[in-house]
Amino acid sequence: MSERVKRFTEERERLNEIVLSRDNINLKRFFALDTAVYRDGALDAKTKELLGLVASLVLRCDDCITYHAVRVKEFNITDEEFDEAISIGLMVGGSITIPHIRRVNQVWQEMKKS
Amino acid sequence: MSERVKRFTEERERLNEIVLSRDNINLKRFFALDTAVYRDGALDAKTKELLGLVASLVLRCDDCITYHAVRVKEFNITDEEFDEAISIGLMVGGSITIPHIRRVNQVWQEMKKS
Amino acid sequence: MSERVKRFTEERERLNEIVLSRDNINLKRFFALDTAVYRDGALDAKTKELLGLVASLVLRCDDCITYHAVRVKEFNITDEEFDEAISIGLMVGGSITIPHIRRVNQVWQEMKKS
Amino acid sequence: MSERVKRFTEERERLNEIVLSRDNINLKRFFALDTAVYRDGALDAKTKELLGLVASLVLRCDDCITYHAVRVKEFNITDEEFDEAISIGLMVGGSITIPHIRRVNQVWQEMKKS
Amino acid sequence: MSERVKRFTEERERLNEIVLSRDNINLKRFFALDTAVYRDGALDAKTKELLGLVASLVLRCDDCITYHAVRVKEFNITDEEFDEAISIGLMVGGSITIPHIRRVNQVWQEMKKS
Amino acid sequence: MSERVKRFTEERERLNEIVLSRDNINLKRFFALDTAVYRDGALDAKTKELLGLVASLVLRCDDCITYHAVRVKEFNITDEEFDEAISIGLMVGGSITIPHIRRVNQVWQEMKKS
Repeated sequence: MSERVKRFTEERERLNEIVLSRDNINLKRFFALDTAVYRDGALDAKTKELLGLVASLVLRCDDCITYHAVRVKEFNITDEEFDEAISIGLMVGGSITIPHIRRVNQVWQEMKKS
Repeated sequence: MSERVKRFTEERERLNEIVLSRDNINLKRFFALDTAVYRDGALDAKTKELLGLVASLVLRCDDCITYHAVRVKEFNITDEEFDEAISIGLMVGGSITIPHIRRVNQVWQEMKKS
Repeated sequence: MSERVKRFTEERERLNEIVLSRDNINLKRFFALDTAVYRDGALDAKTKELLGLVASLVLRCDDCITYHAVRVKEFNITDEEFDEAISIGLMVGGSITIPHIRRVNQVWQEMKKS
Repeated sequence: MSERVKRFTEERERLNEIVLSRDNINLKRFFALDTAVYRDGALDAKTKELLGLVASLVLRCDDCITYHAVRVKEFNITDEEFDEAISIGLMVGGSITIPHIRRVNQVWQEMKKS
Repeated sequence: MSERVKRFTEERERLNEIVLSRDNINLKRFFALDTAVYRDGALDAKTKELLGLVASLVLRCDDCITYHAVRVKEFNITDEEFDEAISIGLMVGGSITIPHIRRVNQVWQEMKKS
Repeated sequence: MSERVKRFTEERERLNEIVLSRDNINLKRFFALDTAVYRDGALDAKTKELLGLVASLVLRCDDCITYHAVRVKEFNITDEEFDEAISIGLMVGGSITIPHIRRVNQVWQEMKKS
């Protein structure tokens, strides 16, 4: 795992623990549901992670983009598949998504090297 | 084709003609590129239309959602696949997407009947 | 109930039935959770509906705004309270929210008359 | 004036009167400020209306887009200037803005004919 | 005050001074109006800050979320009230708000400790 | 050039190289089109950069705002023109844009000093 992804994942888990330690059942239910929708089903998990990636890109959330980029890498998405998914996010969401595309490409490059 | 989808498609084409009759090369190039990114490639066109559908849902654009719903129907997406893609858009984008989910489900139901 | 609100509510319920008739457990869970978070708790239901109203206004979703406006009216929110909540949405969300403020004020006026 | 623009302007004024009849000083101040920022200054009013048009386009608000399109037409913006401003909104905001570009081009065409 | 909140507040004030030193009356009026809408009125200031918090969360602005979290803490909002307000933002705005919820919970935890 | 702008520009170019080294023709075409729409035409390049600046502000993208602020500075935009453009973004986009206005004013001040 790249250093950047390692730090991101650890920080994400540390903060998730804080949120999930809260005494609020609805927050916990939302998080459980958020895991459930990405599970293998009629659509496979790889396709679902791609959907999450492009949704995160057009809504321009770096943490969400990084998370789904790591996930699709685990499903062995190729460079060509990754670029084509990103291109759709770029077309739909416009040039305002470009700074996020720059950053996720850096993450992608680092994940390939490590 | 359902009556609603027929009217939507005709109106969309009528207005597209107005836009594309403008004497502006960059507008035309953008439209051409917008067609290009959805073509079969490393990812197949069906997956790409699903990406367009979910991106449109989280950005809450009814016309865009309807368009991609019609397209994925042409690729014979099943009800289960459709629902799972919509569920991801709903989770990522939140309850603010529900009015759009109501309307696209109506379109989907009408397309199945006709 | 005003005619506009009556039509809105009936259409909303008709389309909700279509969505909830889908065979997808995650959609149903999301809808259940969406009801749960607005129930009386540490914050009372009236305050929660105001939170839903302002969140809907800054995200600019007419259906969501109308729904929460009907709900806060049921909790006997006064004109002054309504205007102050709307003003916060207007400040946070900017002039782009004004068309929605125009429309919800029309709904509000009609609800008061009927 | 085109029929569509005439109806839009009358409806807008009718609803503005409802909003401004509310007994809330902050709403009135916001509306006054919203007029003030578009007045001739270091930047001329025509440029400012173009800024309002493109901001409205990337935020995808049809009423706001129509309003500013009517205003820039009053400043005798040419077709070429209009198209170039729209192209920037399209690039920044992406294909999700296209349905709004379709509709404002229809308004623009109708304003030219009438 | 937690170290993070202290740094945030000082940086915010330093930059606000730069903005308010600009020779532009409309900027100053906007800032004055932005203070006015949160004052005690028909709705109390605590409720208004909660409205600001949830509006900031669904629009996903960390600085705005932190600011309103500090403010509601000053009004002695309890953990339960905070969680319920956050849950509404999460439902309305979707999982895309989760990274912001992680960060504001860290701020909240630090404010409680200090 | 200010130190902050220098670092921003170098990082932006470094990451752009990563993106443009990808083997995807549509990404490259989008980037080329993104350059094309800001060129002198019926509207001059200075006005177009102002349109890009305000569009970036209401969509709240710091990197995009910084980039266009640097560009309009190169076109010798005055303080008064800059403030008036920013004021329109603030009115349209609301107080949620203020953190970005704080940061771009810091950049602007630094560019003037260096």
